[in-house]
Amino acid sequence: MTRVLYELSGIEEGLLFSPFCWRVRYALAHKGLEVETRPWRFTEKEALAFARYDKVPVLVDDDEVITDSYEIMRYLDRRYPEAPLLGEGMAETRGHFFKHYAERALAPAMIRIIIMDLLNAIHPDDRSYFRESREKRFGCTLEELHSPSRGASQLTAALEPLRGQLMESKFLDGQAPAGADYLVFGNFMWARCASGADLVSDSDPVHAWLERMLDLHGGLGRNARRIIDIEGG
Amino acid sequence: MTRVLYELSGIEEGLLFSPFCWRVRYALAHKGLEVETRPWRFTEKEALAFARYDKVPVLVDDDEVITDSYEIMRYLDRRYPEAPLLGEGMAETRGHFFKHYAERALAPAMIRIIIMDLLNAIHPDDRSYFRESREKRFGCTLEELHSPSRGASQLTAALEPLRGQLMESKFLDGQAPAGADYLVFGNFMWARCASGADLVSDSDPVHAWLERMLDLHGGLGRNARRIIDIEGG
Repeated sequence: MTRVLYELSGIEEGLLFSPFCWRVRYALAHKGLEVETRPWRFTEKEALAFARYDKVPVLVDDDEVITDSYEIMRYLDRRYPEAPLLGEGMAETRGHFFKHYAERALAPAMIRIIIMDLLNAIHPDDRSYFRESREKRFGCTLEELHSPSRGASQLTAALEPLRGQLMESKFLDGQAPAGADYLVFGNFMWARCASGADLVSDSDPVHAWLERMLDLHGGLGRNARRIIDIEGG
Repeated sequence: MTRVLYELSGIEEGLLFSPFCWRVRYALAHKGLEVETRPWRFTEKEALAFARYDKVPVLVDDDEVITDSYEIMRYLDRRYPEAPLLGEGMAETRGHFFKHYAERALAPAMIRIIIMDLLNAIHPDDRSYFRESREKRFGCTLEELHSPSRGASQLTAALEPLRGQLMESKFLDGQAPAGADYLVFGNFMWARCASGADLVSDSDPVHAWLERMLDLHGGLGRNARRIIDIEGG
């Protein structure tokens, strides 16, 4: 059995910060599955040619090749049905909303806070690719996108539904974490590993949830390498 | 069999605009259940004393009295299990997030646009109660809260996850509507019935969903009385 996860790495191979890859790392840990990490950088497109894809995460599970974090989570539920991540039917459809919430409500706020840190966390060889592709996507320079105070107020508003849910249950998925938690938490690992910025105040119910998420699966998130641990990072 | 729904009414008894009551009207229609409407106004607290509650919706179903829109939806699923609204387990927990999303992300944006219209839609006898309680809740005057351009830009951002979901499926709950759709759609009926404001542009994927929602259950939403249909309203 070989199980390999291609993951975005930064200035060091051990600096892993892709929010999409973090979803998958947690999803694999949730299923109790071991995985070997294969560090990958933005410009190494040819290394993913076998998957007919140009982004990570890519999971190779025996002879199966699966791309896209959400599709990987669905694949894991099909192949390893114990401890569902997304579930089926109505649960899965609603689970999908958390993907959009993370990517369309939280990420645009967070990126305004961490974008320059993110640029520094990325491998030097990847930086012009990153700048060019992101400036095209956002329609402005990275420096114009960088606006921590605007990002912070956007984030405060965007976190409101999360706060509501977490004031009533320990995890987004109830008494125990599952797919909805991992879909959203990936964003926070992105910010945590690539930046030293404090996104959520200690008194926020989201903060207590983040602490619980960091401790899960043997401290998977808490023990992850962070840019602030790297000399000169 | 008697089934009675206490609902907030405005300057006319037929003008019903509570987002919470609209959730329940759609939920009842989803289950194919008839209901008799009992118009209620904010200041008629004693009329709800039997329910030990001071707000609507209150549903009386034979000898059961159920308060709170979300609890009513759960009750309907328990009592009439066909055509689940919220479902169970992971589906229900995730369904709950849509309640928070509607109340904590959408409503605060929408209220900045419709607050003065809302005041006008409310029965004159209720207006000082409404002003006083809402000004206390929001910590500012209704006139200060009223800020349509700020509300519109807040709403555009808040609708992003909804757009993502609706670009991929006809309803929030997939190919057919269910609880998640009703939890969110209630807010749009609130704005539609109490105000003439256009909240979503025709080209928005949310707009096409709103049109579908209005047509459901024999045009339940589309046929509802609106403030703009009322002379002098």
